[in-house]
Amino acid sequence: MKQLGVRVAAASKSIATASTAEKNEALRTAADCLAASTLEILNANASDVSRAENSGTADAIIDRLRLDPARVDAMANGLRQVIDLPDPVGKVVEKWTRPNGLEIKKVQVPLGVVAIIYENRPNVTSDAFGLCLKSGNAAFLRGSSGAIDSNIAITRALREGIGKAGLAEDALVLVTDTSHEAAVEFMQLRGYIDCLIPRGGSSLITSIVENAKVPYVIDGDGNCHIYVDRAANLQLANDIVVNAKMQRPSVCNAAESLVVHTDIAERFLPQIAEALQGVELVGDKMARAIVPSIGPATTEDWSTEYLDLKMSVRVVDTLDQAIHHVCENSTGHSEAIITDDEDAANEFVRRVDAAAVLINTSTRFVDGEEFGFGAEIGISTQKLHARGPMGLQQLTTTKYIVNGQGQTRG
Amino acid sequence: MKQLGVRVAAASKSIATASTAEKNEALRTAADCLAASTLEILNANASDVSRAENSGTADAIIDRLRLDPARVDAMANGLRQVIDLPDPVGKVVEKWTRPNGLEIKKVQVPLGVVAIIYENRPNVTSDAFGLCLKSGNAAFLRGSSGAIDSNIAITRALREGIGKAGLAEDALVLVTDTSHEAAVEFMQLRGYIDCLIPRGGSSLITSIVENAKVPYVIDGDGNCHIYVDRAANLQLANDIVVNAKMQRPSVCNAAESLVVHTDIAERFLPQIAEALQGVELVGDKMARAIVPSIGPATTEDWSTEYLDLKMSVRVVDTLDQAIHHVCENSTGHSEAIITDDEDAANEFVRRVDAAAVLINTSTRFVDGEEFGFGAEIGISTQKLHARGPMGLQQLTTTKYIVNGQGQTRG
Repeated sequence: MKQLGVRVAAASKSIATASTAEKNEALRTAADCLAASTLEILNANASDVSRAENSGTADAIIDRLRLDPARVDAMANGLRQVIDLPDPVGKVVEKWTRPNGLEIKKVQVPLGVVAIIYENRPNVTSDAFGLCLKSGNAAFLRGSSGAIDSNIAITRALREGIGKAGLAEDALVLVTDTSHEAAVEFMQLRGYIDCLIPRGGSSLITSIVENAKVPYVIDGDGNCHIYVDRAANLQLANDIVVNAKMQRPSVCNAAESLVVHTDIAERFLPQIAEALQGVELVGDKMARAIVPSIGPATTEDWSTEYLDLKMSVRVVDTLDQAIHHVCENSTGHSEAIITDDEDAANEFVRRVDAAAVLINTSTRFVDGEEFGFGAEIGISTQKLHARGPMGLQQLTTTKYIVNGQGQTRG
Repeated sequence: MKQLGVRVAAASKSIATASTAEKNEALRTAADCLAASTLEILNANASDVSRAENSGTADAIIDRLRLDPARVDAMANGLRQVIDLPDPVGKVVEKWTRPNGLEIKKVQVPLGVVAIIYENRPNVTSDAFGLCLKSGNAAFLRGSSGAIDSNIAITRALREGIGKAGLAEDALVLVTDTSHEAAVEFMQLRGYIDCLIPRGGSSLITSIVENAKVPYVIDGDGNCHIYVDRAANLQLANDIVVNAKMQRPSVCNAAESLVVHTDIAERFLPQIAEALQGVELVGDKMARAIVPSIGPATTEDWSTEYLDLKMSVRVVDTLDQAIHHVCENSTGHSEAIITDDEDAANEFVRRVDAAAVLINTSTRFVDGEEFGFGAEIGISTQKLHARGPMGLQQLTTTKYIVNGQGQTRG
């Protein structure tokens, strides 16, 4: 593992100083090599899929694992789209001159080696590589055992493309030992990994917190709430809740919990319960008294990210109670208020501590593409370094450049 | 320990939403209470000092520990100066509108609970509290056993001041259990600490990397280099090296290593060796051939932060070799080049990966006050979150506020 670290760290030095044109050319050749290797990749993927089928893996997981010509093509096109994104490296974030004449510039520079631990989706191999390369970072990837054959084939094609463009092939290194021990060793490679981004469930996050010795950014759960205030436009609230819950329930920015002000609960709850056709609702006493078909919520429900067609419903007496409920159960991802009362909106925004707080819109918008970042490598739910959707800029750090004319300190 | 965490986390919620005026008033009353408690603080400090003397502690350490009326006064004035610094909370970092009409703002907000582990200087208790409070954070402090009586007395005075201003006294909580076990428990208080900043030597950093389960920012060593290029103005180089090495050798931004281009080594080395009167020089063969009084450098010397009147000297044949030497031994703090050759300066800046890279000036300028931040809580040598001097801004995170008019995702 350490040898892999040495290789990727060495490559990161040359990638960090590569020009935008060189990086774009490598993205182009990597995309071409990926497309040209479609057959090889599909064969490797077939072996992953058949292993998964033989071991009785759930259909939804097999679906994420399975590639076809269109999906390989989409991966190649994803790389080509990264070419058009602006290069974040070299951007001057701030600059100023001190009274003693020192000129100080704060400039965006690559992190160095970005490591990613991820689960069964083989497209992450290609997507993560593209964003890392464009931001001047080497990508050090550790996918799951379930996708190992696909990942090896994809990596081989991408590395061939990097080499063809004249850059260091070790700008992409895949860890092929998919044991648990290797994962722990990976997250402890201090000195070789500048930033580790886990993309997986809570057991992976727990393992990182327990074991990691390298810096990391956590892409955590989203137990997202929508609070429908007494001053909400109920039709708008209806549309937003339906969108946030149902449009794609399996993702972290889907809403999991509905909090409703008591003053409008009798009007709103029957309407939204009907609109949420197919969604299992569980709620507190008050919610169930209004809509008897709502099941009882346990304490655990309030803190559960279902990632499914299920939603908890809470009725509150005041805005303050709503904020308390949200703060107590928030995972710090995305929290929304629906209201026409500006004071209520401001109070909610001021007191709710999350990566994103939304007013009169769907939590589903908290996403790198929807924010206009072009792409995202994940959504950070931590407070240090990056918070919220992580695009190319969040894959950089900064460096101060201090220009003097001989100044010494008195 | 967890109970302390619960208290400080609860207080952090109210401090986070306190107005600038409220925070300034608390800084003022805390400063007044500190000054009014001078006698009590000096008595407590006398007990710390006598314990240190009895256990044979080094004079330099006792000097840092010892307080007198002027030092307590300086602590109070330090708090008053923080009043004048701009409040970083609420600053809109970026804002834009998406094609669908969503207005997105990225706003600076407090981190929450900032924890600091530090050594014998009792003034850190007051300084750290002041910066945390101004940036809307609660301060959770763990000083050393050697300064415990002083820290308790200082904390009592500051908390009284916070209370007088009507804010939550638990915005400052001191851990009084100074055992090693308590320190480990402290750095594992996940969920109660938003950012841990260690201020101490390498054994503390190692312990953090090994044990911490809370997010942290490392304020690490500075093995700072000055490279004197073939195109350097030698008089200017002379002044800068003397300043960077001798003006205050015990601090992290002092220079530890001198790298000299061979073309000017015969002219420059004798001159600088004389100018560095009182500094022990150790060097490579080439340096010693030119200045025989330079002692032999071991491999270890190249990576050693002396924090003392000692300096390693290396002669290189090329700019490339200089950059290699710096990169191999850099701790990522501050690295300087002295040259009149713009291309050489640009190459050095481009390839040297450190928090600050300086051209024709002293590494001693890499400091929060010298950068114009007003004050600093430390100098980060890591790449995530903050890199370089950490002022009030680095004690904040950001939150996205998304304002919609009913948008749903398609």
